Amino acid sequence: MQREIVLVEGAGFCFGVKRAIDIAFDVAKIHKKGVFTLGPIIHNPQVVEKLQELGVKPIEDISEQNDIKTLIIRAHGISKKRLDELKSLGYEIIDATCPFVKKAQSIAEKLDSEGYQVLIIGDKEHPEVKGIFSYAGQKAVVVSNCNEIPILNKKLGIIQQTTQPLSKVKEILNAIINSLSEFEEIRIFNTLCNFTAKRLESTGKVAKDVDIMIVIGGKNSANTTQLANLCKKMGVKTYHVENTQEIDKNWFKDVKKIGITAGASTPQWIIDEIIDKIKCL
Amino acid sequence: MQREIVLVEGAGFCFGVKRAIDIAFDVAKIHKKGVFTLGPIIHNPQVVEKLQELGVKPIEDISEQNDIKTLIIRAHGISKKRLDELKSLGYEIIDATCPFVKKAQSIAEKLDSEGYQVLIIGDKEHPEVKGIFSYAGQKAVVVSNCNEIPILNKKLGIIQQTTQPLSKVKEILNAIINSLSEFEEIRIFNTLCNFTAKRLESTGKVAKDVDIMIVIGGKNSANTTQLANLCKKMGVKTYHVENTQEIDKNWFKDVKKIGITAGASTPQWIIDEIIDKIKCL
Repeated sequence: MQREIVLVEGAGFCFGVKRAIDIAFDVAKIHKKGVFTLGPIIHNPQVVEKLQELGVKPIEDISEQNDIKTLIIRAHGISKKRLDELKSLGYEIIDATCPFVKKAQSIAEKLDSEGYQVLIIGDKEHPEVKGIFSYAGQKAVVVSNCNEIPILNKKLGIIQQTTQPLSKVKEILNAIINSLSEFEEIRIFNTLCNFTAKRLESTGKVAKDVDIMIVIGGKNSANTTQLANLCKKMGVKTYHVENTQEIDKNWFKDVKKIGITAGASTPQWIIDEIIDKIKCL
Repeated sequence: MQREIVLVEGAGFCFGVKRAIDIAFDVAKIHKKGVFTLGPIIHNPQVVEKLQELGVKPIEDISEQNDIKTLIIRAHGISKKRLDELKSLGYEIIDATCPFVKKAQSIAEKLDSEGYQVLIIGDKEHPEVKGIFSYAGQKAVVVSNCNEIPILNKKLGIIQQTTQPLSKVKEILNAIINSLSEFEEIRIFNTLCNFTAKRLESTGKVAKDVDIMIVIGGKNSANTTQLANLCKKMGVKTYHVENTQEIDKNWFKDVKKIGITAGASTPQWIIDEIIDKIKCL
């Protein structure tokens, strides 16, 4: 039986992660030794393993290694201070920080230099936020919900962790606007990467038009689970899988049209393997 | 019987109106002839009459007069084009534009020159808004409620007519924030004059503590009526009067403490006359 497979536009890695991984593989081709990524390049063991086979190793602490020649900065970015330190140690630095994160860092730095207190909407423990925060000056604050907004300066510059949900950002902005009379100026830059929202939207469109949906990604991945829940909510039969082994041919009986989507941490080759397996069933 | 009279702080003219009137009276002392105000300096016939006695006449159209030497710009301000025209005609221009309005004009000009589309929250027919609008560039828009927000540019600068109610401003800002994903940057300057809000607050405090409240100002004045309504709502006996003639001595039987407040268009001498009359009852 001939089956049609529809792959959702933007399924899998986001632009910044894809770019960082491509950079790591490119560097691995050029340098055979002494290449390290500062922290795992992505929270996906298969990708990290593949890179290790090519000689690119993740390290947390540079003092653990004395054969470092090249250091790759992952998509999240790092703090200004750490970047300066690493540069001063004479390593070759390959900066694979996502351009959207880089933009947020540079807006934070500009706002601080122009006298704004910088407020970052995001999770203060997230590496991306730690990096951005280091560019945002002494007065900077990180806010993750409406209940923790501190007393703020009269001239306020607001940016966001690139992956924050739009709904939460709006909620915090509205709470700040409610105290408008306490401010001289509120300057809001949109530093959100709307990739996740777009993928969700595209997934919804495909789900409407197929017999079953295969959602690929970690079972504990928040964004993948969100994709699966959306499909289920739309009434289409949905399977959330992590790899080809989980694919069951009984799912595809009498199925003519199959939709495929994947979370932000799912590499393209896993998507390709699953598509190949379905084609061969 | 000894009565105590408490005058609300900030009762009567706002800072900008008071300043413009003071300037007009000062000019009248120096120049004996050829002094005009562009439009009535305030919508209060008694003030306009007093100035006319001193030789300062209101005109709408400069072509009506050929003996103009000095022109006073009133607190609302005028358009950039008109100001330039008047200057080029060689008149002495005394600019009594309220400093808060002047600030809004200059922010509008700066935002436009830095590539922002300027959005003014206010009443597009109001002279103040017409003046500010003339500084705000080709792309500028005026918005008075949530239902009339047009499609906006990605880089938006927002200011307010100085006397807009804070609640309405917040509502419109929240509606714009709701479309955050359509913007690169939203830059909000607080150009509100919080005088009206402060007067309302001070009136409420006095009303709590007196036996009756005398609210002075035009019966058709929105801000005076708002003051009277607040006092009534607080359960204190309240009289809304325009002049001394309306004061009735029967109101003050067994009254020990009298609160007095006044709307933004009420001159100080009317307040003084009424206080004097009450003292003599």
